[in-house]
Amino acid sequence: MSIIYSKFETEILVRPDDIDMNEHVHNSKYFDYVLAARYDQMKRCYGMSMEEFIERGFGWVVSACRLNFKRPLKLGDTAIVRARIQTIKSNGVDVVFEIVKKENKKICVDGIFEYTMINLQTQRAATIPDDILKKYSV
Amino acid sequence: MSIIYSKFETEILVRPDDIDMNEHVHNSKYFDYVLAARYDQMKRCYGMSMEEFIERGFGWVVSACRLNFKRPLKLGDTAIVRARIQTIKSNGVDVVFEIVKKENKKICVDGIFEYTMINLQTQRAATIPDDILKKYSV
Amino acid sequence: MSIIYSKFETEILVRPDDIDMNEHVHNSKYFDYVLAARYDQMKRCYGMSMEEFIERGFGWVVSACRLNFKRPLKLGDTAIVRARIQTIKSNGVDVVFEIVKKENKKICVDGIFEYTMINLQTQRAATIPDDILKKYSV
Amino acid sequence: MSIIYSKFETEILVRPDDIDMNEHVHNSKYFDYVLAARYDQMKRCYGMSMEEFIERGFGWVVSACRLNFKRPLKLGDTAIVRARIQTIKSNGVDVVFEIVKKENKKICVDGIFEYTMINLQTQRAATIPDDILKKYSV
Repeated sequence: MSIIYSKFETEILVRPDDIDMNEHVHNSKYFDYVLAARYDQMKRCYGMSMEEFIERGFGWVVSACRLNFKRPLKLGDTAIVRARIQTIKSNGVDVVFEIVKKENKKICVDGIFEYTMINLQTQRAATIPDDILKKYSV
Repeated sequence: MSIIYSKFETEILVRPDDIDMNEHVHNSKYFDYVLAARYDQMKRCYGMSMEEFIERGFGWVVSACRLNFKRPLKLGDTAIVRARIQTIKSNGVDVVFEIVKKENKKICVDGIFEYTMINLQTQRAATIPDDILKKYSV
Repeated sequence: MSIIYSKFETEILVRPDDIDMNEHVHNSKYFDYVLAARYDQMKRCYGMSMEEFIERGFGWVVSACRLNFKRPLKLGDTAIVRARIQTIKSNGVDVVFEIVKKENKKICVDGIFEYTMINLQTQRAATIPDDILKKYSV
Repeated sequence: MSIIYSKFETEILVRPDDIDMNEHVHNSKYFDYVLAARYDQMKRCYGMSMEEFIERGFGWVVSACRLNFKRPLKLGDTAIVRARIQTIKSNGVDVVFEIVKKENKKICVDGIFEYTMINLQTQRAATIPDDILKKYSV
């Protein structure tokens, strides 16, 4: 049996400085869109903003990521980043995502971000406290 | 006598990738915020999007800019970019702007962008046609 | 039996605008470092620059990538991007890479980029011509 | 009588992620090139790196800048950033710069950056100590 966690959505408007010489959103900017969505969702959907983590001495780092580029976004498009925790580990979470174009809901990019929670003082992986695990288990 | 043109506003949410090592929006990103606001306002407020300019063989380039940095924006803030045409010239417009923090309306950055309209084929300055001058004279 | 292709190196100096709020090179910039290294190596090591591909009507897009973040780079560091073709496919190449810190040669990031060669007119995957396959088989 | 301070040069290789939809270096990246050149020159030419300023409790912020865009740089070009202190003030320096294309030495961008030295604790303008003034008066 595996738990299915909630999927949340964040809208991101493509900015002109996101566009590269191919007239598409530059590949590495999709990484930044997922990052922006996570910040938004931590605060708005999981009830614990990055600032609150920092206050408790914790930070989050990306340990690994995979992005599959399927269709480009262009200037004028709006991205919807849908993200969902796939696995909760003792010191991190795996978050699967898909970025769809708002106008037609087609998937442009999907993939996974593997996050590790760190102790900001030691800069090493930290065990996620129970109260935070609870917030994330939605 | 001088003409006072309309001031328009665009909201821009600060993204994590805009933040630099000082934990503020990176200076050069304010340039990109003004650029994003112009794209939005060309379409929404002046009734002629960048795409429509391109279809008619025209482009816009920034010839010069001045930015005065007064207060930093931070992660979690929303920028409001207020822009107003100051002067319409035969082949360009000077746009004055101010970026305020939405939460307290304090000015973070202000300055001017001097835009030149170009003929995309020759890549040289082009005389702004009357119908476009009219759209911009609001 | 598998063919081992050559590994090439490109040096990239960390710029202040690459640094994020954690005082490290921002995760998505490593993607851009690999991209910059590929441009350099296409021209310098494989003898066919991106411009030459474009002249022949071809382009390269990243279909997928995986990045494993092991140690951060900081301002003042120099990155060495080591890249090697792992597999040549009919319409693309898989390139494995590692980014090491020049000063101590420790691996900061490694992973894979899966590139697809496209026909610029159709924007669809194209079969790599024999003469290009030969250039890449070093 | 006015003092003419030394002009220093830093080379910056254009990266693919610096290029925008016009196939030129994106306007705001020239800001980042000047910033990168200043970091290099502080350490290499003035004998006091940003890290050393920070250790003494000082930081530098850009109070204002003006950039005049004259000719674009493209992928494959190398930028040379020439910078020179124009004026030393009690709590800052005005730095004039020009960015030339290495291949033909033509000016692409020029302008001025007005820097303010701040006390990192108070985040307010600080008087530049005599020993630093001396380092900068070359």
